[in-house]
Amino acid sequence: MDISFNQHLEGVCKKKDNYLCIGLDIDPNKFSTGRDTSLKGMEQFALEIINATISFCPIYKPNFAFFERYGAKGYALLEKIVDFINGRAIVIADAKRGDIGNTSIKYAKSIFEVMGFDAVTISPYMGRDAIEPYLNYSNKGVFVLGLTSNPSAFEIQGHGTDINPLYVKVIEIINELNVMDNIGLVVGGTQTGIMKKIRTLSKNIPWLIPGIGAQGGSLVQAVQISNNNGFGIINVSRGILYAGDGSISKITKAALDYTSKIRELTCKKVNY
Amino acid sequence: MDISFNQHLEGVCKKKDNYLCIGLDIDPNKFSTGRDTSLKGMEQFALEIINATISFCPIYKPNFAFFERYGAKGYALLEKIVDFINGRAIVIADAKRGDIGNTSIKYAKSIFEVMGFDAVTISPYMGRDAIEPYLNYSNKGVFVLGLTSNPSAFEIQGHGTDINPLYVKVIEIINELNVMDNIGLVVGGTQTGIMKKIRTLSKNIPWLIPGIGAQGGSLVQAVQISNNNGFGIINVSRGILYAGDGSISKITKAALDYTSKIRELTCKKVNY
Repeated sequence: MDISFNQHLEGVCKKKDNYLCIGLDIDPNKFSTGRDTSLKGMEQFALEIINATISFCPIYKPNFAFFERYGAKGYALLEKIVDFINGRAIVIADAKRGDIGNTSIKYAKSIFEVMGFDAVTISPYMGRDAIEPYLNYSNKGVFVLGLTSNPSAFEIQGHGTDINPLYVKVIEIINELNVMDNIGLVVGGTQTGIMKKIRTLSKNIPWLIPGIGAQGGSLVQAVQISNNNGFGIINVSRGILYAGDGSISKITKAALDYTSKIRELTCKKVNY
Repeated sequence: MDISFNQHLEGVCKKKDNYLCIGLDIDPNKFSTGRDTSLKGMEQFALEIINATISFCPIYKPNFAFFERYGAKGYALLEKIVDFINGRAIVIADAKRGDIGNTSIKYAKSIFEVMGFDAVTISPYMGRDAIEPYLNYSNKGVFVLGLTSNPSAFEIQGHGTDINPLYVKVIEIINELNVMDNIGLVVGGTQTGIMKKIRTLSKNIPWLIPGIGAQGGSLVQAVQISNNNGFGIINVSRGILYAGDGSISKITKAALDYTSKIRELTCKKVNY
């Protein structure tokens, strides 16, 4: 394609007028009574959700752990989901990979070429060696963990001095690496206190924002701050997948509710 | 078992009088001429290497990226390798996972319960949430990335002040978390300049040491420093897998050569 991955991502969002990402953290233990909890039932659940939401949802993000727990068969289901979506939405591999260059080349091949994902999440602990092999795929996206949403995130990601904590260093690196406009930043939706600072530092790099819903992040702040310069993808997993009685109609309703709120918030942009 | 994972690991090493770990970074592009480069050929290669070395090699470490690049079928091969080893050696999943607690529980289930690995490598970028779910398996091992062997390792892992860089913070955390004596530390074999300091800080926690061989780390220093208090596992991947003409006899010879050197170095312990 002639446009960059980030432009493509924004285009898909604009076309559906939505910045929602449905996180496919599919856990049969949380299924409503009567639903088949086998791997086949998990596949059925995933495809039903996608069918019910793909007309308005621009992005899906399968969380690899929830599939890998079934070993090779779970991996096959990941591939099936990408095939099923078949270009109708962006699919992010939430795999949080991070390894030396030699190994990252293989992971990139696996996720982008073999499995056909559009984007991936990457852990920066091993430095830029761990990121660059993915960036070489100019039409694919790379979301690097910056400041995550979990309780113990800050003990590592905030390490350093007050002025120069680790997540700031990571943002400096991704700014340098974003030559082909195909890099993004993961910013936990619970990190409301420092989101404005992160938006300034990360320039117009798109954000992927988990932690909204079950983890307690604020949707209003996440949308308004991330969209103030650049744009932000709002990921909701448990808050949609296990909404209400767990029926597809309740799941669809929850996804539509998030969509309405996101549309309203992005429509009336405010300086935050 | 009544003994801890780290005691079990040391016991297996002592029984075989060896601290070698063969890293199964199997890359058909590097196969010798005439060898089958299909996934079936990759399986054949893995099993031949294991057959030829398991009498003296205590640990194998399949690198997940080299298998995942084949999608679900590569994942099935990982499972086959664990089954084939069948308790005759320790098998470490070199997966470098790292995610929030809720997700880490699933990864731990996948790697330890479904696939049957004895240990796993973990990235600490997301903090202790990302480590604890694995530690709950008291008879399994968790090797946390400390200071890795790759060129850009230090830009993140060395972040902070000279006295308190990130890798020191990580070591403090793993010291705290090692309640059940089932945690280990990944220390790159190329980091010879600061290995002594890391050995002091990481007390008697076992090390997993990649970076020896192709990446240029010093075997002598790695063995002597890591074994000065506690013990260290020496991982060699490319230096064994693609030795000489790539025949199984040359691979076996390379593994035996490393074994001899390790035995000699651990036998004549010196204060380094």
